[in-house]
Amino acid sequence: MSAPKKVVLAYSGGLDTSIILKWLQTEYGCEVVTFTADLGQGEELEPARKKAELLGIAPENIYIEDVREEFVRDFVFPMFRANALYEGQYLLGTSIARPLISKRLVEIAAETGADAVAHGATGKGNDQVRFELAAAALNPDIKVIAPWRLWDLTSRTRLLEFAEQNQIPIAKDKRGEAPFSVDANLLHTSSEGKVLENPAEEAPDYVLQRITRPEDAPNEPEFVEITFEKGDAVAINGEAMSPATILTRLNELGGKHGIGILDLVENRFVGMKSRGVYETPGGTILLEAHRGIEQITLDSGAGHLKDSIMPRYAELIYNGFWFSPEREMLQALIDKSQEHVSGTVRLKLYKGSARTVARWSDHSLYSEAHVTFEEDAGAYDQKDAQGFIQLNALRLRLLASRKRRLG
Amino acid sequence: MSAPKKVVLAYSGGLDTSIILKWLQTEYGCEVVTFTADLGQGEELEPARKKAELLGIAPENIYIEDVREEFVRDFVFPMFRANALYEGQYLLGTSIARPLISKRLVEIAAETGADAVAHGATGKGNDQVRFELAAAALNPDIKVIAPWRLWDLTSRTRLLEFAEQNQIPIAKDKRGEAPFSVDANLLHTSSEGKVLENPAEEAPDYVLQRITRPEDAPNEPEFVEITFEKGDAVAINGEAMSPATILTRLNELGGKHGIGILDLVENRFVGMKSRGVYETPGGTILLEAHRGIEQITLDSGAGHLKDSIMPRYAELIYNGFWFSPEREMLQALIDKSQEHVSGTVRLKLYKGSARTVARWSDHSLYSEAHVTFEEDAGAYDQKDAQGFIQLNALRLRLLASRKRRLG
Amino acid sequence: MSAPKKVVLAYSGGLDTSIILKWLQTEYGCEVVTFTADLGQGEELEPARKKAELLGIAPENIYIEDVREEFVRDFVFPMFRANALYEGQYLLGTSIARPLISKRLVEIAAETGADAVAHGATGKGNDQVRFELAAAALNPDIKVIAPWRLWDLTSRTRLLEFAEQNQIPIAKDKRGEAPFSVDANLLHTSSEGKVLENPAEEAPDYVLQRITRPEDAPNEPEFVEITFEKGDAVAINGEAMSPATILTRLNELGGKHGIGILDLVENRFVGMKSRGVYETPGGTILLEAHRGIEQITLDSGAGHLKDSIMPRYAELIYNGFWFSPEREMLQALIDKSQEHVSGTVRLKLYKGSARTVARWSDHSLYSEAHVTFEEDAGAYDQKDAQGFIQLNALRLRLLASRKRRLG
Amino acid sequence: MSAPKKVVLAYSGGLDTSIILKWLQTEYGCEVVTFTADLGQGEELEPARKKAELLGIAPENIYIEDVREEFVRDFVFPMFRANALYEGQYLLGTSIARPLISKRLVEIAAETGADAVAHGATGKGNDQVRFELAAAALNPDIKVIAPWRLWDLTSRTRLLEFAEQNQIPIAKDKRGEAPFSVDANLLHTSSEGKVLENPAEEAPDYVLQRITRPEDAPNEPEFVEITFEKGDAVAINGEAMSPATILTRLNELGGKHGIGILDLVENRFVGMKSRGVYETPGGTILLEAHRGIEQITLDSGAGHLKDSIMPRYAELIYNGFWFSPEREMLQALIDKSQEHVSGTVRLKLYKGSARTVARWSDHSLYSEAHVTFEEDAGAYDQKDAQGFIQLNALRLRLLASRKRRLG
Repeated sequence: MSAPKKVVLAYSGGLDTSIILKWLQTEYGCEVVTFTADLGQGEELEPARKKAELLGIAPENIYIEDVREEFVRDFVFPMFRANALYEGQYLLGTSIARPLISKRLVEIAAETGADAVAHGATGKGNDQVRFELAAAALNPDIKVIAPWRLWDLTSRTRLLEFAEQNQIPIAKDKRGEAPFSVDANLLHTSSEGKVLENPAEEAPDYVLQRITRPEDAPNEPEFVEITFEKGDAVAINGEAMSPATILTRLNELGGKHGIGILDLVENRFVGMKSRGVYETPGGTILLEAHRGIEQITLDSGAGHLKDSIMPRYAELIYNGFWFSPEREMLQALIDKSQEHVSGTVRLKLYKGSARTVARWSDHSLYSEAHVTFEEDAGAYDQKDAQGFIQLNALRLRLLASRKRRLG
Repeated sequence: MSAPKKVVLAYSGGLDTSIILKWLQTEYGCEVVTFTADLGQGEELEPARKKAELLGIAPENIYIEDVREEFVRDFVFPMFRANALYEGQYLLGTSIARPLISKRLVEIAAETGADAVAHGATGKGNDQVRFELAAAALNPDIKVIAPWRLWDLTSRTRLLEFAEQNQIPIAKDKRGEAPFSVDANLLHTSSEGKVLENPAEEAPDYVLQRITRPEDAPNEPEFVEITFEKGDAVAINGEAMSPATILTRLNELGGKHGIGILDLVENRFVGMKSRGVYETPGGTILLEAHRGIEQITLDSGAGHLKDSIMPRYAELIYNGFWFSPEREMLQALIDKSQEHVSGTVRLKLYKGSARTVARWSDHSLYSEAHVTFEEDAGAYDQKDAQGFIQLNALRLRLLASRKRRLG
Repeated sequence: MSAPKKVVLAYSGGLDTSIILKWLQTEYGCEVVTFTADLGQGEELEPARKKAELLGIAPENIYIEDVREEFVRDFVFPMFRANALYEGQYLLGTSIARPLISKRLVEIAAETGADAVAHGATGKGNDQVRFELAAAALNPDIKVIAPWRLWDLTSRTRLLEFAEQNQIPIAKDKRGEAPFSVDANLLHTSSEGKVLENPAEEAPDYVLQRITRPEDAPNEPEFVEITFEKGDAVAINGEAMSPATILTRLNELGGKHGIGILDLVENRFVGMKSRGVYETPGGTILLEAHRGIEQITLDSGAGHLKDSIMPRYAELIYNGFWFSPEREMLQALIDKSQEHVSGTVRLKLYKGSARTVARWSDHSLYSEAHVTFEEDAGAYDQKDAQGFIQLNALRLRLLASRKRRLG
Repeated sequence: MSAPKKVVLAYSGGLDTSIILKWLQTEYGCEVVTFTADLGQGEELEPARKKAELLGIAPENIYIEDVREEFVRDFVFPMFRANALYEGQYLLGTSIARPLISKRLVEIAAETGADAVAHGATGKGNDQVRFELAAAALNPDIKVIAPWRLWDLTSRTRLLEFAEQNQIPIAKDKRGEAPFSVDANLLHTSSEGKVLENPAEEAPDYVLQRITRPEDAPNEPEFVEITFEKGDAVAINGEAMSPATILTRLNELGGKHGIGILDLVENRFVGMKSRGVYETPGGTILLEAHRGIEQITLDSGAGHLKDSIMPRYAELIYNGFWFSPEREMLQALIDKSQEHVSGTVRLKLYKGSARTVARWSDHSLYSEAHVTFEEDAGAYDQKDAQGFIQLNALRLRLLASRKRRLG
């Protein structure tokens, strides 16, 4: 790969990406464009602008954007239509944010005439894969610079030295090493590394960033009603809201009630296991609610098919294949199923759990006339069950006859 | 179908199956053998013997058995190896008990020379299917009598009249109708019908049979350690126990801490939706724990394959195909994966939730040497990620080039 | 079910459906509407009109339609996008015709104010299921009359007696029993029953209805080029044609060259096995050609996903679930994949086989630059393979280390 | 990776692996052990011994083995139990041979105290992946040397120069470049590269190595009967034979009758497409026969489950994951299904095609009593179909009612 001439960097304004910024300038003598996105991580963005200016980035090369609505509308909500869980438990909070960042990096590269993009993910993780697969899928010729795989700043000491040598300001609390590493966006906060590296030891309480410990949550349950249209949440307690507003509001509720903590050892795409603590307050409520509304609006054919392809769909997102034909094919299947997934779910939130307690919909397939223990006025003829069972049993009988015959 | 000469009846000793017993005698003039099983439903069995005797069943035709260990060892545990959840949420507590009952009915028929078996399931539910498919798979020639699909006792009033006409004792509390219908065994208690028939209305608290309301559960969390060997739980807090003892003990813990309540609208195999409240205290803890030990002992290849076939496996059990080639094939696949699923999981139980907080095993595949944020002494070469990503990206690049080429 | 007042009958004009027509009139005293469709079965339709008139059907109640284009465009082609094969071998020629017939029956019922539809399928086969599931999915209240499951005309003798008693003309060759039963449409001809009932005996040559025996096919191979657009065949040897014309032309080619004979024992949905001889001349060529064009226009992600869901898709069609949410969801997935399945395939037809020998497309993903054994000018860096393999191997290494560790 | 001290090389005796042998000696100054296997590729092995001796390999370091029986028994036959086809068409002839070679390389390394293995696969293909994943799975610490990814002998000219400089004999016909590249074993011969690189051009006839052109095949069909036991072929025309003998005999038959030619563009695991011509004469017959015996000995539950997991199984083998937990899990599933796959299939071989024409078995599930068009003496009650259809239709009716309700 020839040296890049102009690079769009995913820039947080923090110490690490500031070092990367400087390193790109130094290593390649290239122009750098910074992209800082508000994905709901809960940090001010303007300091990133100041920091970029300080590091010599021209104002027109500083991109700072609030992408929260796009994030929830075009990435989080489509994923939740699938009830996606990686390895049965993980709500994919980090995975789903990466394609959006790559998409904007590639778009800004096109706008600014840059020939490369750069990210601050390490060579051990999944994020490098997600960033780079997305970039390749969106622009086959774009170069991707992953400084962590390239440079020799392989220890904290050397990083800090490089920062000092290059007049990069170091916040006091960054002198010492953080006890664990954090990533956050509107869907979740993940923590991993350091004090969490031994999966046999319970994570300390101070790891939690946005969810109240269940023990400290309110002693009274709270109920919330979430309304869906075509598979997406559109209102809370009857009040219509934008996608990002809904997720923000559910995060507040979940965080307050201790909902959405997951301590997980997972399989990374790069082949190793890692342990993380995930906090997904609003997402955990949303998944339960979406399951709740599907209970009455999807028939078994649609629901079981969705369930059977979900693990593959989740794996694709986890592995970084959001912009792939197969993810889009599965999305087409999933979206097709959501046409009637409209209605309202009532959930009870209490000290760590969110449970569906009621659900109703004009689109409901639930038929009290059929299921009732009372007289059903001919809706269902119990004698039909005889034939249904006989024909389902026929092949089992033939198998049993063979077994008997062969002794 | 010609009339049966001798019938083995799944007999609970309750009013309904007593009526069936009498109806079989009356309708067919046939000999009846009763089978009453202790599956952990929490009821005394000896009254069933008395009742059967009262209804004229000869002592040698009364079978009363404690099958709890067989139930957990040969049915519940194999199913939990799969992390089976029907429609994403239901732990299959009723479904998994039916094949065992059918198996014993068919075996007792062989021992006693009976040509038929009978059950008390209605024509609207799944249980009839489960009983009858299992019977057909075990004896291709056995007749199955399902009185609810045959008789004209289609109202509560007529049932009670029949009981009175036939001197069947009616407990006082059975005069009025129960507000909902209950099924129980060591794995779960299910409630459905009547007051639960409107899924838009929250289930009343009095529906709960064995789980404390989370609000009433202890204010202090409790920790429990579950040890697995080859996928099955073998010890609690270091104390080795039999399968049924383990489930009993986990039920106590889960019940105490409000764990395992599920309010679900599900799709029955017979085509309608029904709403139930399930209480699965021990099973809910066990599923979480099993997931926890698999996190460190299964690699991604095994784990993801298991996850991808799980919905089908769960559907088979739900639909009554326990004794089918395809369930046995999937079981072979699952069991093969469990060879190293051994180790211990520590869980935190608190007001409705059971969460894995730590796990350890001699069989662990977690490698701190690989995943560490610190120097890894060459365990992993970050530069390898470059090639890994490049080749995974190749087809995406070719797709992107096509898109660009075709404009 | 109350008696029908007006019935739309799927009417071939043959003896059996004429008897059904009369039986419906006799049994229910109801008005009958006949629907006779040209699905490409190769029979004149006007005799059916005469026959219906003779049996007293009013002219406005006689529907005769050429549905060949709709059949191929809306049913056959969508199915071929999936490369559908039931049980690995059967091209679903009968299965795919049934939903179209049911759809027209239900539509004509709506137009004519009929409350029921009727078909001539027996109680042992799949067709009854396909007809009736489709009808139920299109009109939840329509009655379906299946005389073969209802009447007492259970032997050939009684059928003929009924015909004679009711002045139904009996063609001379129908006096004796046919040596096997035939169903045909533009996609295939199936033969089953009677002389074919023993799967251990080779089918006699005279069973073949439309395919030349390979031994009698031309001694010279013939080449044909089929052009696809978005997954559907649109031209043969450069000549654009309508869907039905394409299939007709391929049938001629396949029939001439002995292509598309299948002798199969299959599993019916109703639980028994049956043996059939299928002739699918054009379809067999079309499947091979579609695979051929997908080879260069689908990437592995899309192709493998399609392959993995194909068996389920085929099973749904076989079982009669064309008009179901899950078939439509799978169709959405499949159709999404076909956007770029455009180009031309060259096949060699010779004495029973059709083989792709060349394929080309503007949408091709094949990159000679990447795959070449010659210098590739940097298109591909072989050193990337090192990292790709290392990371794919990592979990296998960790597994091997565990095995070694545990001895 | 530190330099290897002793390397076991997969050695064919040909020019390329002789160059590798020398290069290993030169580059690393290491001891080389050669492993030459008879996999049925149809070449003498003794010349390889002479060549190795000539290149200075000590006699005790020359391993020459006939592994044909192991190859067919432990690799080919288990794979055929699954009816494995990669991308719907490819019988995996190359893929399935690689794990066996790696297994022996690793075993010989253990016996001889070698710390590395080496292979002659290039950096663009699948074989490098298959060799190396298998090696990693069998010995986590073994080094793998892939000279084609390491050296600078990147053109034919430089290879020949190296050979001349190192006194490696060059056969006359190796001076010029071969018009395509060939790999062969008992299951298949593959040809790719050079004249085959343009998938729009038909492969020249001279590419065929072991199959007679269909046009040149006998004008008379030939019939063959293959007997299976538990899924594996055990006899041909009633004569019991060893696995390798059976495959050899079927190869002769298939080759004679022009059976098993496939011209394919496939997706390599490394991300690019390649075009190959595969000749799999015996395997093509075997697959058809195995399908034929499964038709009567597997029920639909087992058969459909097998079909649904087959694409994944085939992909695993293609990608090199033979020695992986997920392949072994799928194998357990498949093997479980084969318990009753015993019986005999009769096939007709004629000018390029092999078709099942009859099949019989003591284990047959085919029931003429059930399927017959004649009176079935009560084996099957057609009225049962009514209930079967009603309950399968119920959810479709509820869906149709919703559609009507919502307008």
